[in-house]
Amino acid sequence: MTLAQSVLAGDRLSLARLLTHVENDTPEGQIALNALFPHTGRAHLIGVTGAPGTGKSSLVNQLALQYRKQEKRVAIVAVDPSSPFTGGAVLGDRVRMRDLAGDKGVFIRSMASRGSLGGLAQATAGVAQVFDAAGFDVILIETVGAGQSEVDIARLAHTTLVVDVPGLGDDIQAIKAGILEIADIIVINKADRAGADSAERALKSMLDLAHPVHKIFTHHGQALAAGAPAESSPNALLWIPLIRRTVATDGAGLPELIDSIQLHAVYLRHSGDWARRERVRLSVELNLFIQKMLVERFRASVPEEALNQTLDLIQQRVLSPREAVNKLMEE
Amino acid sequence: MTLAQSVLAGDRLSLARLLTHVENDTPEGQIALNALFPHTGRAHLIGVTGAPGTGKSSLVNQLALQYRKQEKRVAIVAVDPSSPFTGGAVLGDRVRMRDLAGDKGVFIRSMASRGSLGGLAQATAGVAQVFDAAGFDVILIETVGAGQSEVDIARLAHTTLVVDVPGLGDDIQAIKAGILEIADIIVINKADRAGADSAERALKSMLDLAHPVHKIFTHHGQALAAGAPAESSPNALLWIPLIRRTVATDGAGLPELIDSIQLHAVYLRHSGDWARRERVRLSVELNLFIQKMLVERFRASVPEEALNQTLDLIQQRVLSPREAVNKLMEE
Repeated sequence: MTLAQSVLAGDRLSLARLLTHVENDTPEGQIALNALFPHTGRAHLIGVTGAPGTGKSSLVNQLALQYRKQEKRVAIVAVDPSSPFTGGAVLGDRVRMRDLAGDKGVFIRSMASRGSLGGLAQATAGVAQVFDAAGFDVILIETVGAGQSEVDIARLAHTTLVVDVPGLGDDIQAIKAGILEIADIIVINKADRAGADSAERALKSMLDLAHPVHKIFTHHGQALAAGAPAESSPNALLWIPLIRRTVATDGAGLPELIDSIQLHAVYLRHSGDWARRERVRLSVELNLFIQKMLVERFRASVPEEALNQTLDLIQQRVLSPREAVNKLMEE
Repeated sequence: MTLAQSVLAGDRLSLARLLTHVENDTPEGQIALNALFPHTGRAHLIGVTGAPGTGKSSLVNQLALQYRKQEKRVAIVAVDPSSPFTGGAVLGDRVRMRDLAGDKGVFIRSMASRGSLGGLAQATAGVAQVFDAAGFDVILIETVGAGQSEVDIARLAHTTLVVDVPGLGDDIQAIKAGILEIADIIVINKADRAGADSAERALKSMLDLAHPVHKIFTHHGQALAAGAPAESSPNALLWIPLIRRTVATDGAGLPELIDSIQLHAVYLRHSGDWARRERVRLSVELNLFIQKMLVERFRASVPEEALNQTLDLIQQRVLSPREAVNKLMEE
């Protein structure tokens, strides 16, 4: 039995082994990914991002617990800003294990954000495909929404949650503003803290700025939530980000959040956005592959020595980097 | 007079215009960058990064003020996690202007982290080259050290400062661990807060883990600071990250920090690391150019229609993304 076949048969050990192959981009992982790809396309990919300190990990845990109550199989992909310095993923596996340990319907994977630009996005896409093919219904992709590349990973999900908390500092507000635009659902976590009302007001006014026309007709998705536009005019269907409050530490607001995610899935199917988002995701993945393949071919065709000599010329200021590339391309 | 010549002649308006060209990667910007490149290689590039909320911007302001006292010309490049949603760079220009406004020896530029992977790194490298050629002695590159790509930008400087504060939360600690390894100097900012001592102890033990051998011989750079190894054995010269305390809001610790940065510059020259780091930076830049050029050529050679048909096949699960790329490359 091949590795892909074992994974399709539900063997957890093979699943774990394959994930490592995919993360390390080994030939074995590549073969298995090709074999598994026809079995993908069924899972609901949910991106969860937000500034540091918003309690994303707890929220993701709670989401997983809720989905387990519905007997859905849940995979968690935690993209962590860790490093060789600390020896691997810092957040993630261990902390989560308390609530979810021993449950065969849950699989947790931490991904370290080392490696080259684009490498992490590619590995995350591959890991999500493995979970999808292995029959997981929900794949939660958690990233720290502070870096552009990490945000890019979260936005490629079908549904993107941006997590906020009352009373963050200015620096963090700035980061938040940058990722709000990708939110399908904004979660105000730690909503039992002082300042939740004013945080919600601030978020609403930012959303009104972004969706000025719809401000008049809907109250942040309530019209859609009532189901009205879906029937009357499916082509004009538009999703206004919902704002939901949670306290992830005790599970408050989680059932309502799950309902909102479900509503978004319904919206995606009705509007055709499900297929459109999938296409965007697959297109991004295709482009990353093309880029990688082109660079590999170039490396194979240009001797290391020529590259080093070119670098010498750049360092001596004889050639600018751009002139150097033109020269290399001509040769 | 060309744009490059005006910049070399010290015209600030031309400088501002060229920076915009470089940020947008226009042909005019590319021509000017080629012309300016022979004039680069003199500035000291200082990367300043750290988790959100550590007061990086204030610290960068203070560093600029200190360098101005030494009559050095200072450029600040603030790489901000902003977005079209909020209409541009959130941090940066306006806040800084109070202290530095009207000073012709200072130039501040905010860069938004929109655009493709690698695009920001390329634009930042170009902007730094313009400042370098224009005769700025010190170029401070400030990034939010929470995303991999932003950290990658900071680490390409000659000297990298990682800013920390006492009493950050767990999420942020994890981020911090990921960027500590790139620090030449660790700055404990807001050092008047409770917990500065324990923060320094924690940082020291993390450093000891990373540099176990040197723990015995030096006390975090003190031996080097005394100048001993530099004379005795330049090839074995090794920099152990220094820890410095500051209160950026009132300037406490800033003169000592400037001295440490200067010490690092001396170390870089003595050890040969100055040229080595420059080579790494230029090599990264060269690779980004190669990648971009290869993708552009590929795009020009493959019709949009063929790419769309390939995407159709992927979405129908007839081809995996990797199989699709192989097929495209054969054609």
